[in-house]
Amino acid sequence: MRSHYCGNVTEAQDGQEVTLVGWVNRARNMGGVVFLDLRDREGIVQVVYDPDLPEAFATASSLRSEFCVQVKGLVRLRPDSQINKNMNTGAIEVLGKELTIINRSEPLPIDFNTDVSEEQRLKYRYLDLRRPEMTNKLKFRAKVTSEVRRFLDDSGFMDVETPILTAATPEGARDYLVPSRTHKGQFFALPQSPQLFKQLLMMSGMDKYYQIVKCFRDEDLRADRQPEFTQIDIETSFMSAEQVMAETETMIRTLFKKMLNVDLPKFPHMTYAEAMRRFGSDKPDLRNPLELVDVADLLKEVEFKVFSAPANDPEGRVATLRVPGGAKLSRKQIDEYTKYVGIYGAKGLAWMKINEAGNGIEGVQSPIAKFLSDDIVNAIVERNGAEAGDIILFGADSDKVVTDAMGALRLKAGEDFELLSGEWAPLWVVDFPMFEKADGRYYALHHPFTAPTNMTPAELEANPDTALSDAYDMVLNGCELGGGSVRIHQADMQAAAFRVLGISDEEAQEKFGFLLDALKYGTPPHAGLAFGLDRLIMLMVGAESIREVMAFPKTTTAACPLTNAPGTANDEQLVELAIARMPQQEKQD
Amino acid sequence: MRSHYCGNVTEAQDGQEVTLVGWVNRARNMGGVVFLDLRDREGIVQVVYDPDLPEAFATASSLRSEFCVQVKGLVRLRPDSQINKNMNTGAIEVLGKELTIINRSEPLPIDFNTDVSEEQRLKYRYLDLRRPEMTNKLKFRAKVTSEVRRFLDDSGFMDVETPILTAATPEGARDYLVPSRTHKGQFFALPQSPQLFKQLLMMSGMDKYYQIVKCFRDEDLRADRQPEFTQIDIETSFMSAEQVMAETETMIRTLFKKMLNVDLPKFPHMTYAEAMRRFGSDKPDLRNPLELVDVADLLKEVEFKVFSAPANDPEGRVATLRVPGGAKLSRKQIDEYTKYVGIYGAKGLAWMKINEAGNGIEGVQSPIAKFLSDDIVNAIVERNGAEAGDIILFGADSDKVVTDAMGALRLKAGEDFELLSGEWAPLWVVDFPMFEKADGRYYALHHPFTAPTNMTPAELEANPDTALSDAYDMVLNGCELGGGSVRIHQADMQAAAFRVLGISDEEAQEKFGFLLDALKYGTPPHAGLAFGLDRLIMLMVGAESIREVMAFPKTTTAACPLTNAPGTANDEQLVELAIARMPQQEKQD
Repeated sequence: MRSHYCGNVTEAQDGQEVTLVGWVNRARNMGGVVFLDLRDREGIVQVVYDPDLPEAFATASSLRSEFCVQVKGLVRLRPDSQINKNMNTGAIEVLGKELTIINRSEPLPIDFNTDVSEEQRLKYRYLDLRRPEMTNKLKFRAKVTSEVRRFLDDSGFMDVETPILTAATPEGARDYLVPSRTHKGQFFALPQSPQLFKQLLMMSGMDKYYQIVKCFRDEDLRADRQPEFTQIDIETSFMSAEQVMAETETMIRTLFKKMLNVDLPKFPHMTYAEAMRRFGSDKPDLRNPLELVDVADLLKEVEFKVFSAPANDPEGRVATLRVPGGAKLSRKQIDEYTKYVGIYGAKGLAWMKINEAGNGIEGVQSPIAKFLSDDIVNAIVERNGAEAGDIILFGADSDKVVTDAMGALRLKAGEDFELLSGEWAPLWVVDFPMFEKADGRYYALHHPFTAPTNMTPAELEANPDTALSDAYDMVLNGCELGGGSVRIHQADMQAAAFRVLGISDEEAQEKFGFLLDALKYGTPPHAGLAFGLDRLIMLMVGAESIREVMAFPKTTTAACPLTNAPGTANDEQLVELAIARMPQQEKQD
Repeated sequence: MRSHYCGNVTEAQDGQEVTLVGWVNRARNMGGVVFLDLRDREGIVQVVYDPDLPEAFATASSLRSEFCVQVKGLVRLRPDSQINKNMNTGAIEVLGKELTIINRSEPLPIDFNTDVSEEQRLKYRYLDLRRPEMTNKLKFRAKVTSEVRRFLDDSGFMDVETPILTAATPEGARDYLVPSRTHKGQFFALPQSPQLFKQLLMMSGMDKYYQIVKCFRDEDLRADRQPEFTQIDIETSFMSAEQVMAETETMIRTLFKKMLNVDLPKFPHMTYAEAMRRFGSDKPDLRNPLELVDVADLLKEVEFKVFSAPANDPEGRVATLRVPGGAKLSRKQIDEYTKYVGIYGAKGLAWMKINEAGNGIEGVQSPIAKFLSDDIVNAIVERNGAEAGDIILFGADSDKVVTDAMGALRLKAGEDFELLSGEWAPLWVVDFPMFEKADGRYYALHHPFTAPTNMTPAELEANPDTALSDAYDMVLNGCELGGGSVRIHQADMQAAAFRVLGISDEEAQEKFGFLLDALKYGTPPHAGLAFGLDRLIMLMVGAESIREVMAFPKTTTAACPLTNAPGTANDEQLVELAIARMPQQEKQD
């Protein structure tokens, strides 16, 4: 039905007859001639119908937005004055000869030129996706997955499908459950990731595995979370953490070059400890030049307990953040910042505006200066490299509160003062702690299958607090793009890790017996990682939310306004599945 | 950790030092030398350790099956007498210099050299998949999906992901349900196919879509069914059935050429009516030369009511099947065939052995010959092209029973008499009826969105019995590889189809309101199809079951012996989901 896509008609077709199909983007009669902007997946082309051909002209005059039509016509160059350099087709127009209405359209139920709610956009997603902006995002996404697959296929990775109907996974989020009809009273879980299956594939000798795969988490949703999301899932045998990082870094660099013509810099490696210390985040945004500067050593002896108490506490932290030009902050703006760090548990926000560096208390304006000596003020100013017109902000509390609060403040100030560089800022964060302690027990920072760095099982059990994992996160512009680790490949180490996590041998056997069993039969050393595809694409296209780069996302209450999912099930179905709906009031306390 | 894959070490590496990792396939001491067959994903290589290097030799002597080891050694050519032409590595061996045990293995819990149950194989799937036979199937599968994707990407198809958590689909099989936590009492369904989403994508202007995607059906399982299976799902806009068939035929031909170096013949097109008449099947196996031959016209006047009644009934059928060489069938074998057609409802199986063609009743041996005249016998023999030594088998009953029974018997006799050609036999079956009638109502032969061929909505409603659909199935060697159709793209036609199917306007609005809505806004003509990827690969590798080409399939009771899925859910989870397990005895009648 077509000879070309609308968006691909250019000077190269000058003088040719073309047949196009698409949608009426706009049709208007100007000076007795109908100008039809015809749109398809590849773009928009201008078609002109004049009254010389009365039948086609009459049809053209009857067109309304979003009619689906077929056009036959002659490509000709536009006069110089009418060339539109912003369009691929802007140098030509099509002189319409024939026009067939394939399917009419009622007036659209929503007007995308006004401020349409996301609910409405999702309800009429098939119209929303016709907008070139949305079409282009899905095209971009398809191209990304294609490039990723080619890279991995060509690098010897095997695409292997793992089950969607499976057992509960140990990722820590809430599982979606699927009642089994053939095993009544039992449930499948949808996978939070194919973690165990990809490890089993390494145990199967598949050597290098990948899959672009849906994962599921029944969590309360935020802008960058969806009930189902897509991972680029990777696992390798016989490769070190460094090798996995090198290979996947090459993949991402290749992707940015091919898709955006961007040469990413070589990814620096930064330890978790350094990232937390300098940037107050395990996914630092390195586009932001601000850094936290520790000053506890300078404040151990001051009488101001707000500073000296955490400065002397091994679990405390006192850190500063210099904001260049920040002296212009009003009292009100500082109050807002104080409120902001309060979200992260900070009880206040001390500050020091610099009028003159090196002049002690005289050179600064600060409610806390009176607690400090000239030497201390000078040392703080100097260590921060602060200059006249800057502000230094203080965090003093437990290490966690200061790191979280000042890390968040760093991001906020960086945006408020427009300090972010325009460059892409990737890095690897490495040397994570194996465990974090909360409520008197240990939790895996990654997952229970992560290997420690250079430790025996006995050492791991003896020193869980200081154990580092052989894990790595890829961070781009302050977003975690992906993460992974070397996995435990020996049964005694896995048993030790379970014991640190308070998982009894019985529980381990019950939940992960098949994994522990599998470790007995010559499991190879293996390592891998997973990228969040939705988030990667969101970053690459500069979208605000992963919903913008998914064809049919759910709302923040995990519903689909288009298909009305979830929906009712009939009683017969539930009887077959041996389940019943429970009235909500029967909910347990 | 390696310089080469084991399976890739050949004469090209003669004289080189190589480092290999893999599993001990076999290690044996022969004549004071240890011969180690080392295996990885790519194959097996022979490594030799001799006592000159006492440390490596001692380690080699301690090896057991499935130890994971690293080998360093020198590649050398084998003496001519020891060359093994069946192995890629058969011209060389590696003289082992170093040997490191990476991970030990306990004796395997199953012995794959004996007859292992499928349950055991699935429980220890990670060991089962190490077998080269299984590894190679998964490698083949990965290559197929890669080639299919490249073909479709390069042909302008966009890979778009559609939801797994969605609304109930209208494919007719039982849905897997997923209780919603945020919308208590409501359920998602896992998709039986992305049918409606891919149509919505066409309405979104995506023009050409594909996805290799998991689909789910909660059905009782057979050899070629699994709870989750994978489709190559395709949809196009502005293309006719012929164009879709041509493009996807090219895809399959390209795939067979690349993967198997097989030049498939051009696919013949055969109407459903012809397939049922000649082969008694809508997916005829054209490797089988046998054909059903209708003889009702010859038998209308005979006194033998078993023949004359169906011969005179417009809904009856009398058909014959000549089996060359079949005269040698014993009475017992014929009884078995009679029992076999009984499965399909046939009440008996008349037969006629040919001793001499053209000699009427004298020339045949048959319990029914006495009811027939010489002329009729001769006509039947002649129409079947039967010769001395053949048998002619008779089916006489309703059209459905005869077609089903004789179609099945055709397959059975073809196998029993080893009549199948060794060639691949693809074809397209087209011109299906729109509807089939059962229990006094109409059912869609494909699905309710299939367009009729050359009919208005009014004509469709007036003539549902004779309406043909613009649908097409790709058949290979008697298996349906895929099927699809032109879809209805106009609201009035969709409404007419729903009415024929007895779906009220209210029900249609409730279930498919979003589709009917979408049809109002300039829906393009669109058509597509879906291939069963598992079955395609099963055929290509000659496997007996789709379970053989899936990494982690379920058993026939839809369970996973490896992960013990489905499993128990704890009460808290169920409370959150507002569902309860129902004791089975509470089941309704």
